[in-house]
Amino acid sequence: MELYFLGTGAGAPSKERNVSAVGLRQPRTGRWWLFDCGEGTQHRMAESPFKWNRLEAVFITHLHGDHVFGLPGLLASRSLLGLTSPLAIFGPSGLRGYLESVFQFTDTHLGFALEVEEIGDGWARTFACGWTVRCGKLCHSVESLGFRVEEPPQPGRFHPDKALALGVEPGPAYARLKRGETVVLPGGRIVAGRDVTDPPRPGRRVVLLGDTEPCTGALTLAEGADLLVHEATFLSRDEPLARRSRHSTAAEAADLARRAKAGKLVITHLSPRYAGRELELLAEARAVFPATEMAIDGSSFRCDPHP
Amino acid sequence: MELYFLGTGAGAPSKERNVSAVGLRQPRTGRWWLFDCGEGTQHRMAESPFKWNRLEAVFITHLHGDHVFGLPGLLASRSLLGLTSPLAIFGPSGLRGYLESVFQFTDTHLGFALEVEEIGDGWARTFACGWTVRCGKLCHSVESLGFRVEEPPQPGRFHPDKALALGVEPGPAYARLKRGETVVLPGGRIVAGRDVTDPPRPGRRVVLLGDTEPCTGALTLAEGADLLVHEATFLSRDEPLARRSRHSTAAEAADLARRAKAGKLVITHLSPRYAGRELELLAEARAVFPATEMAIDGSSFRCDPHP
Repeated sequence: MELYFLGTGAGAPSKERNVSAVGLRQPRTGRWWLFDCGEGTQHRMAESPFKWNRLEAVFITHLHGDHVFGLPGLLASRSLLGLTSPLAIFGPSGLRGYLESVFQFTDTHLGFALEVEEIGDGWARTFACGWTVRCGKLCHSVESLGFRVEEPPQPGRFHPDKALALGVEPGPAYARLKRGETVVLPGGRIVAGRDVTDPPRPGRRVVLLGDTEPCTGALTLAEGADLLVHEATFLSRDEPLARRSRHSTAAEAADLARRAKAGKLVITHLSPRYAGRELELLAEARAVFPATEMAIDGSSFRCDPHP
Repeated sequence: MELYFLGTGAGAPSKERNVSAVGLRQPRTGRWWLFDCGEGTQHRMAESPFKWNRLEAVFITHLHGDHVFGLPGLLASRSLLGLTSPLAIFGPSGLRGYLESVFQFTDTHLGFALEVEEIGDGWARTFACGWTVRCGKLCHSVESLGFRVEEPPQPGRFHPDKALALGVEPGPAYARLKRGETVVLPGGRIVAGRDVTDPPRPGRRVVLLGDTEPCTGALTLAEGADLLVHEATFLSRDEPLARRSRHSTAAEAADLARRAKAGKLVITHLSPRYAGRELELLAEARAVFPATEMAIDGSSFRCDPHP
């Protein structure tokens, strides 16, 4: 699993940071999901490793302009490119009305089926790739959602030396044992997958939160995340601004990661007011939660399988 | 008067050409008007000579997405930048509903008064800078407008040698004569402005047309333009595509410029299908109307005063 940041700024685009958009790439297939779609996301995509025909789903955290103004253009371009496969979009109440309204006024007709699903707190779905997405409600000036992406438990490590010692020759039987199945050897001996593999490993958990101030909903979603993406719009010394606009400071994002026992925190959605001195945001977060990284446009973060 | 092209492509953005937007800069003041606002226009503005606080008005030719998807973000950013002066926007029927609808769904509240005026065929207004804008209806798959910007007649050239010969000493009297006024010399002699200046020169006429196929409305608007901006979405060999989507070929744009007796034609809104071989579009137009230029993103074209 790999996150790729297409836009990492808050509010308005700057030369350094475009407005919000993050891609989550699936291993091997190259398929990817998009989280939020600020204006210019399709332009950033053109400079990214993402392919249009591998975009599988779009998740919208909330309907503020810096998270959705790029959506109509992205969908229209996908259509103009001749892609006809359906596309699923998930987001809060109002998402369907927003898109329908824009498309009506601009006489936009998509050449593919757009499957808009308005979702809320507690929604969950398991996708074809095996990942489950759970949705939770955050605390912001408009309805804002967070997404917890969970990989199913992965098979434990296979030990070919143990299999060999039990008399299993390399070949198709190995694949079955890796999957946890049981094989019967020519002499009648029975070998179970669990005899030659470690116990299943927990799947990875990547959590992406929309704009939010610290709240229980955010903590619940982030619990035990291997990789947590959290907004850090302000420095603590500008906390009054954070409260007024219902955002988080870098220290608050880090505190949430610490309380949730996250493996790694990536801060994003930085206010353009800190251009040129954003390392202050990173330092503030690291003082609370050392395993913090700061996203920049074009940066990517891997979430490796558990050992 | 100077045109600056922020986006020159049709339909969807490409790496080379963003979607439609053109700025028209006023001499001296640095004030400017924006014509159309495709997605990413505000990003291109950041790389252009235009200043946010000098944007005086926005004109929209039609409501197709590649001409308006950047408008909500541009307005939201202008507000976030703290600009509080009113902004006037002119465009076809539906423009107000589009913006109101987007702002309602995305909970966008501008910190300045947005004065949306829906206009149509025959609308005209004279602005503070002295320019008059006339609006005419074109022929496209949705209501599409063209704009004719007319500078008022300019004072004729002043001849200081003639003034001196008539006994006028250099000084404040010269300024009055330049303005066409009459001065009375100390000895009682009367000198009129017309005695020492050439006749008034016609003002410049810049015409920017929205998407259109060839039609009378386009010809009427373009009549005698010093500088005509016309779409040239297709090559003539793809004329069936032009007819189906109600666009023009490069040859048709050039033919209109020729029939309108335009001074110069700038073709824009080129289909991404011609990426890498756009000079074919230019060649096709020049074969019909030699005084043709092709806009690229970031290019500018001056319209100099009449001699």
